[in-house]
Amino acid sequence: MSTSHTGAVTRPKGFVAAGVAAGLKSSGNKDLALVVNQGPSFASATVFTSNRCKANPVLWSQEVVKDGIVKAVVLNSGGANCYTGAEGFQTTHATAERVAEKVGIGAIDVIVCSTGLIGLVNNRDDLLRGVDAAAEALGETGGDDAAHAIMTTDTVSKQVIVTGDGWSIGGMAKGAGMLAPALATMLVVITTDADVDSATLDRALRTATRVSFDRLDSDGCMSTNDTVTLLASGASGVTPSEEAFTAALTSVCSDLAMQLLQDAEGADHSISIQTINAASEDDAVKVGRSVARSNLFKAAIFGKDPNWGRILASVGTTDAEFDPADLDVALNGVWVCKASTPAEDPSQIDLEPREVTVTIDLKSGSARATVWTNDLTHAYVHENSAYSS
Amino acid sequence: MSTSHTGAVTRPKGFVAAGVAAGLKSSGNKDLALVVNQGPSFASATVFTSNRCKANPVLWSQEVVKDGIVKAVVLNSGGANCYTGAEGFQTTHATAERVAEKVGIGAIDVIVCSTGLIGLVNNRDDLLRGVDAAAEALGETGGDDAAHAIMTTDTVSKQVIVTGDGWSIGGMAKGAGMLAPALATMLVVITTDADVDSATLDRALRTATRVSFDRLDSDGCMSTNDTVTLLASGASGVTPSEEAFTAALTSVCSDLAMQLLQDAEGADHSISIQTINAASEDDAVKVGRSVARSNLFKAAIFGKDPNWGRILASVGTTDAEFDPADLDVALNGVWVCKASTPAEDPSQIDLEPREVTVTIDLKSGSARATVWTNDLTHAYVHENSAYSS
Repeated sequence: MSTSHTGAVTRPKGFVAAGVAAGLKSSGNKDLALVVNQGPSFASATVFTSNRCKANPVLWSQEVVKDGIVKAVVLNSGGANCYTGAEGFQTTHATAERVAEKVGIGAIDVIVCSTGLIGLVNNRDDLLRGVDAAAEALGETGGDDAAHAIMTTDTVSKQVIVTGDGWSIGGMAKGAGMLAPALATMLVVITTDADVDSATLDRALRTATRVSFDRLDSDGCMSTNDTVTLLASGASGVTPSEEAFTAALTSVCSDLAMQLLQDAEGADHSISIQTINAASEDDAVKVGRSVARSNLFKAAIFGKDPNWGRILASVGTTDAEFDPADLDVALNGVWVCKASTPAEDPSQIDLEPREVTVTIDLKSGSARATVWTNDLTHAYVHENSAYSS
Repeated sequence: MSTSHTGAVTRPKGFVAAGVAAGLKSSGNKDLALVVNQGPSFASATVFTSNRCKANPVLWSQEVVKDGIVKAVVLNSGGANCYTGAEGFQTTHATAERVAEKVGIGAIDVIVCSTGLIGLVNNRDDLLRGVDAAAEALGETGGDDAAHAIMTTDTVSKQVIVTGDGWSIGGMAKGAGMLAPALATMLVVITTDADVDSATLDRALRTATRVSFDRLDSDGCMSTNDTVTLLASGASGVTPSEEAFTAALTSVCSDLAMQLLQDAEGADHSISIQTINAASEDDAVKVGRSVARSNLFKAAIFGKDPNWGRILASVGTTDAEFDPADLDVALNGVWVCKASTPAEDPSQIDLEPREVTVTIDLKSGSARATVWTNDLTHAYVHENSAYSS
């Protein structure tokens, strides 16, 4: 397998895409993307936010995916269309209808994704004009434009391609804040020309997201709009083994997740929390997530302060299996705490580089898991205190 | 009942206290407090942090409280004595022994509380010299000195007295960061001259902390050292009804909790989250806590931004009973969202004042609960990124 990072979603055969400026963003930047599967197969799998307060585009798209067939995905920034009532749902529906009309498919095969402020519905006329322009612009090299059109506070576009033997998978993602438990304001479109049925795609996507997007917990906040959708055109004529396909898809999702982590709003550090020797993978994830959500720990890392006590204080809030008197903790490989007692000198830890690794040894089994997060910075507070005003 | 706020823990009859500078704090400020119950009764009740990673003073004090008898509490700042191994436990034990020797009681009746950095054990000689000085200084007007000696990043001392019919309750607290679920780095000593047995004290204390300290969630981080202890001297000779005593104690705990909230590290706003019409009190607390832990919501309040979508996004992460399509939300009494749809104009909300009220109507029953938190500010990030260095 090889990877590269441009025009990703139109690199697999059978897909066209476009990204246009529909006037939804006040900046005048591209704000509407369209990805169309031209077949011959239209198999798909999608995972949505587990937030019970779901945006209108999610409510619509949950119906679309029920039969496993998706032919197009339309994504807009400039407004989340969440908690906008009947008018908001009608806007989502009208968007799918317009895509269907322009592309010559049924609206019930069109996924809609929106991102932006909750409580805000986009101007429907602008949105529909944007769909018209995107349908006109659809092309086999439209992947880059699409990836740029879904950016909000992202500073770079996130794309990746993984190539198998005669088939490939391409993905694009957006998301910078709200990366969280079981997904975040994260919109991801993944395309493949492998010939794989919907049931297999679904298994592969759940396996891949479980160890990638689901373990990204930038700020503990869960979005109302998250959608990760996978479209398979079958245009390569190749059906890889489920193992090979799942491995490639996991690689795509992990790569995109790391790109999201690197570009998280206001972050100075990318923190990898590795819990080892846990009684179960669940325990390991639980411990990692509790540390990832400690504002005190995250502020310490921003301050380049190897304050390992804040790690132990977080571990202690979980019900994972461990002996509180026998925990080991390392920061960047320096074992600052052994058997719950101060060990190596923390002052030798260099917290200048962006990458920080925390290792927590629970000494209770052989399971392990990694959870990723960012530090808590002045820039995070600044960006998120001034978002809607 | 009347309330006032000075020399609180020595206002009930039967108590002496002192606060001295033992040299544990580099500032030279008072850093060691001692409170002694002179009887005739020595009934007590204590609640500790629910963090599984507990500091040495907590491990010691859990043994002390088992028989319901506590005769003295010694508290020091300058080091949490948590994850300091056998040496740290010996230091706690030596401290209790020295108090016992100086006051003429048994060490097993002496609660020890410590606060400061995890992984740091105080100099034992300094600590023991401090105990000697405090024992010398014990007096019936020592309450103020004791309340000042337990301050760390607190900017003011927290004290309260509530007077009943011939009896009274006095309390002092410290704590400014890490206010959290089921207690925080919060050390609280409450004294009363009411003649109440340990079992009744325990019931009253659990009732009072459940609706006060336990619902304070300043930053979602749980301490390793939290202790709230209640000592009853019986010196008034009065045994109030359990109802009257519990009400007065709840009033003491609520007042101290609000003093902690007002002085939380780096906070610009004190936020009261009231969940109403919930199916159960548990549901109401769950919803309030999820909002209290949303960094995005807390940063918005710092920015004086009435971004109510972030409230709904937090509510949706809980499993409380509600219809996602029928939620009402008010900010400072302005119902910005009715039936999950934008309602009154958010721009009329004035977020300049420190006090902010969020009301969430779940429309699923008649239970309610209030959870208190603070906003997420630059000052919070600053103070907590530079704590140990």
